[in-house]
Amino acid sequence: MTELMTEKWRDVAHIGHAELLTPVPEESLRYFTSLLGLTVAAEGGGSWYLRGYGDYEPYCLKLTASDHAGLGHMAVRAWSPAALERRVGWLKSAGVSGSWVQPEAGKGPFFEFADPDGHPMRIYYETSKWSAPAGEPPAMKTNHQRYLGCGANVRRLEHVNLMARDVRACREFWDDGFGLRTFEIIRRPDGSEDGAWLSSTVQGHEVIYVRDYLGGAGRLHHLAFWVDSREDVLRAADLMNDAFVPIEAGPSRHIPIQGFYLYTREPGGNRIEICSGGYLGFDPDDNPVIWTSSEYAAKPGWGARLPSTFRNYGTPPVGAPAESDCSDWPAPAYLGQP
Amino acid sequence: MTELMTEKWRDVAHIGHAELLTPVPEESLRYFTSLLGLTVAAEGGGSWYLRGYGDYEPYCLKLTASDHAGLGHMAVRAWSPAALERRVGWLKSAGVSGSWVQPEAGKGPFFEFADPDGHPMRIYYETSKWSAPAGEPPAMKTNHQRYLGCGANVRRLEHVNLMARDVRACREFWDDGFGLRTFEIIRRPDGSEDGAWLSSTVQGHEVIYVRDYLGGAGRLHHLAFWVDSREDVLRAADLMNDAFVPIEAGPSRHIPIQGFYLYTREPGGNRIEICSGGYLGFDPDDNPVIWTSSEYAAKPGWGARLPSTFRNYGTPPVGAPAESDCSDWPAPAYLGQP
Amino acid sequence: MTELMTEKWRDVAHIGHAELLTPVPEESLRYFTSLLGLTVAAEGGGSWYLRGYGDYEPYCLKLTASDHAGLGHMAVRAWSPAALERRVGWLKSAGVSGSWVQPEAGKGPFFEFADPDGHPMRIYYETSKWSAPAGEPPAMKTNHQRYLGCGANVRRLEHVNLMARDVRACREFWDDGFGLRTFEIIRRPDGSEDGAWLSSTVQGHEVIYVRDYLGGAGRLHHLAFWVDSREDVLRAADLMNDAFVPIEAGPSRHIPIQGFYLYTREPGGNRIEICSGGYLGFDPDDNPVIWTSSEYAAKPGWGARLPSTFRNYGTPPVGAPAESDCSDWPAPAYLGQP
Amino acid sequence: MTELMTEKWRDVAHIGHAELLTPVPEESLRYFTSLLGLTVAAEGGGSWYLRGYGDYEPYCLKLTASDHAGLGHMAVRAWSPAALERRVGWLKSAGVSGSWVQPEAGKGPFFEFADPDGHPMRIYYETSKWSAPAGEPPAMKTNHQRYLGCGANVRRLEHVNLMARDVRACREFWDDGFGLRTFEIIRRPDGSEDGAWLSSTVQGHEVIYVRDYLGGAGRLHHLAFWVDSREDVLRAADLMNDAFVPIEAGPSRHIPIQGFYLYTREPGGNRIEICSGGYLGFDPDDNPVIWTSSEYAAKPGWGARLPSTFRNYGTPPVGAPAESDCSDWPAPAYLGQP
Repeated sequence: MTELMTEKWRDVAHIGHAELLTPVPEESLRYFTSLLGLTVAAEGGGSWYLRGYGDYEPYCLKLTASDHAGLGHMAVRAWSPAALERRVGWLKSAGVSGSWVQPEAGKGPFFEFADPDGHPMRIYYETSKWSAPAGEPPAMKTNHQRYLGCGANVRRLEHVNLMARDVRACREFWDDGFGLRTFEIIRRPDGSEDGAWLSSTVQGHEVIYVRDYLGGAGRLHHLAFWVDSREDVLRAADLMNDAFVPIEAGPSRHIPIQGFYLYTREPGGNRIEICSGGYLGFDPDDNPVIWTSSEYAAKPGWGARLPSTFRNYGTPPVGAPAESDCSDWPAPAYLGQP
Repeated sequence: MTELMTEKWRDVAHIGHAELLTPVPEESLRYFTSLLGLTVAAEGGGSWYLRGYGDYEPYCLKLTASDHAGLGHMAVRAWSPAALERRVGWLKSAGVSGSWVQPEAGKGPFFEFADPDGHPMRIYYETSKWSAPAGEPPAMKTNHQRYLGCGANVRRLEHVNLMARDVRACREFWDDGFGLRTFEIIRRPDGSEDGAWLSSTVQGHEVIYVRDYLGGAGRLHHLAFWVDSREDVLRAADLMNDAFVPIEAGPSRHIPIQGFYLYTREPGGNRIEICSGGYLGFDPDDNPVIWTSSEYAAKPGWGARLPSTFRNYGTPPVGAPAESDCSDWPAPAYLGQP
Repeated sequence: MTELMTEKWRDVAHIGHAELLTPVPEESLRYFTSLLGLTVAAEGGGSWYLRGYGDYEPYCLKLTASDHAGLGHMAVRAWSPAALERRVGWLKSAGVSGSWVQPEAGKGPFFEFADPDGHPMRIYYETSKWSAPAGEPPAMKTNHQRYLGCGANVRRLEHVNLMARDVRACREFWDDGFGLRTFEIIRRPDGSEDGAWLSSTVQGHEVIYVRDYLGGAGRLHHLAFWVDSREDVLRAADLMNDAFVPIEAGPSRHIPIQGFYLYTREPGGNRIEICSGGYLGFDPDDNPVIWTSSEYAAKPGWGARLPSTFRNYGTPPVGAPAESDCSDWPAPAYLGQP
Repeated sequence: MTELMTEKWRDVAHIGHAELLTPVPEESLRYFTSLLGLTVAAEGGGSWYLRGYGDYEPYCLKLTASDHAGLGHMAVRAWSPAALERRVGWLKSAGVSGSWVQPEAGKGPFFEFADPDGHPMRIYYETSKWSAPAGEPPAMKTNHQRYLGCGANVRRLEHVNLMARDVRACREFWDDGFGLRTFEIIRRPDGSEDGAWLSSTVQGHEVIYVRDYLGGAGRLHHLAFWVDSREDVLRAADLMNDAFVPIEAGPSRHIPIQGFYLYTREPGGNRIEICSGGYLGFDPDDNPVIWTSSEYAAKPGWGARLPSTFRNYGTPPVGAPAESDCSDWPAPAYLGQP
């Protein structure tokens, strides 16, 4: 086991899905279907299971009615049955408690546990491959469903960004325990970290942690969905703008991973990103780029300045005034406006 | 008047709309709304009036049930009431008969006449400006309606391409009579022309004539709708492919005007282009680029070879075998296939 | 004459070029050739004449050594010899003094005059058409030179943005005197204007005026060069960032005309935009979109907030502290940094 | 070992570089630097070592003078020292002979061997990370060099396509021996394969084999270099067209992997692709998409038909007439033309 860990054997294949909680489920569903272009693959138990047109699995988003916004859980798919077994073994050896959860809507069983900040996590191997509905085959069998070009037309869930009181502990948890590679870190002089970007593939981010400056626990910063070009991110901004959905930031480019982004808030209050671009990291060596706080503050790359809510707001909110001051948003007139 | 003509005073402001005839109106309507993303602005008298999201007028396409496919008519908007009067005056002085047609769905009256090949044409000045439905204002008042991002999401009608037995006569008709500028010509050694590209603006084409090699009269080669980027043309190909709509040619680039194209056939049999790109022509001097037949045949620019139907097929068809041989199409399997 | 004016006869065909003054001519030249991708068409008298790859004329930028930064002059091409004569006649009838200037580098003679704010202007008809150097023909004769793909690879000068104490007077000067159409206006309650966007073609801007809040005279806000896609604007930001050229704003989208922009400062201190996108205006009627100050301040469209220098800085500077506070730039670390 | 193989442990991290042989080295070098935008990282022993702007290693192309065109060798980087050891162990256990080669220009040592068709291959772990030249740091430390935007501006080597008499044997060699995943296969009724697409990452191709219909041995079909958008592939076509470089196919889209392509011939005669797009494959299960010959021949996706040379021509040529008939190229006039 030790040797395998040293080599960063990639037992995790990719991010599988996220469960999002919303207090206004019908409105949130409309946002994800009409505006993001996801389709409902299954429904039940107060949840909808939604898929992007590029998902080989049945779904990448589980949307669940709740009394508050936030993350239900996040799930990653193991590379193989043996890999799943090894990861569960590691969790036990590391003293992380967890338990098995029954399959849902064609995926699972899942082993459920929590990261050091308390975010619910799942790992699974068993899954089913999506078949297009009868009578609606895509033209090419390399596609998983027909391309409909609806709304922002997102292809899949790309990454999950979580807030944490101890970013470093969370990063090391995924690195040590699951072999995710760290691509970039923002590190303070005291060794603590303001942000960390990890991935199980050559894509620069799949799991991200950013410091929870307001001291919440287990909060969600955002979910990000992928579109194939930066041009598509720009189109999404037109769409969101005319749907009077609040645009918190973008379109612009981040310094970390250089991803091109657009941030809106879905009706339930969760922050949702539409993203594209960013670099691929092929180097298997363990050498993340480390930004010192001052290097990062110097803003070495182009890209709009992020509004202050981007730093402070997460779901569920903690109730601090700093979370709701959107006076520096790109289009503030739209908050709460039809 | 003579002096004005010499100066190519642009009495025509832009192309206004086209009327398309279809023997399967419901299916054609579905193509234009679900796949092209046009919306119905008005309906009546066996026709639908459809608009792109960028149209400042109520519509750019009139879709009419008929026993055959083809062009109903094409309409251009005059620059001013006086310009309209001058053009009607020119038609009369040139011995071209015509008559006034009542307004339709917020445009008109129209003066209707025929070009030298017999295509019905209209010119008008009076029009109404589109107002978004109550409760659905776009975010910015420079937009004419909300951006919905549906399907290929075409912005407007960009050009009409007509087949003619005498391309040169048709070109000179628009040049002499209406001040359209000729951007490019394909000219044979005998002085006759295989194609001519004209426009009333800096955009390289608005009215195109190509030789009708099968000797039909008043036939339509295609209508072209604009999208904002070549990337959007590529996306449209995915969409059409998965909708099992026959793709006749493209995505690729034409030599004339360098426009980026995708050609499909709407269910009624009419050829429809989705286009973007192409150069703008700012030079007011009368100096079209003239391709000799051999220069053009040498294919000086990149771009896929066009299938033989592109040369032969128009609507309504004349019934020649050459019109229906689609063995060299990019995706022939889809003809008549669900 | 009166009737022609009423009809907005477009005697102006398009913007021809701008002369830019720079105190560091060699460095400015390097910026325009290596980074923007312009090429030198001619040289002489302390100036370089530079062209974009899409220019049909020999040049769109005259770069001239001077003791200060700013606009040398701006030139527009008349539609015809008679149109030139009419415009010169109008200037005389309006009491605007001017005089003829000898041809330069294949364009002219020019009639030179000043707009109400004192910016030097020229109008001309005679020009020469660019021929590619012997041995370097482009593949297609519709192109004016080979496509080299250098740097930001701008195609042509797209617009000139001028600061003025009385925006409205300047706008009316071009509208009344030259038939340019006004596309958008930002108007205060007192009827004065903060900005006006005019054009002689369907493209939304060619000549722009914005209020000179610091009360300078004849100052330049920026020159804008066109690239064919928003993707190319994004690429330009990478290029400028790595060349350590100060990025003042963007990439993002403006509300007026909806143009996608990137603003940098060339070494001489002049603000230069790389732009794409924006809507086309086909409606010939005289109905500009008028934003009230409060509508505009409400920021109805997405797009980054502009830094304060964007409002205050022009060339030549007037020496106010507000002109040089770049603390809210997207990448402030680069000012004066190698 | 057996267990590890069953799990497809990805001991290969990514493709490292290719060595290309050319009989006209100076001209080939000019093509790769001026047109593709690669830069020379090192030189020596009759070879140049060239890099894309995105390479973290010193080079992705070794260009070597030779009396014939073709592949010198292809190299893949192992995930770790232990992974390298395991792969060399597998080669020995499989009876594949090989030997160690000294480091070159900052990479290596390499273990060299041959695939079943005789193409020289190398695997290595040791490498050096590229440092930008002193005084030319990129603005962001996540970039490996400055972004210069030269020519087609390729980022890196993306894949190598090799011709083979027995595609299946070659595919199984990489799959069994190196854990590369097979994404797609074109399979004949007799079980033999016409094409196979393999990768060590989520990107759909890195190593491709296609049938050598003319029965050559160890031949190269093409090298492919990556650009970040399909728009950039289209730009590259303009560039190549004006440089009078022969364009064999594209821009268009392949059915396998759905990659967007442009094929030109570098002066030495080797076929070079500029590519972008294509899907990512996240599913770790061993379930390639298998096209039957007839499914593939039915052309289920849009995209131009490939010219016959695309099937027949490889380097070095075997001398068959079918290799040189370029009558169906998109721009045949340019072969051998200045």
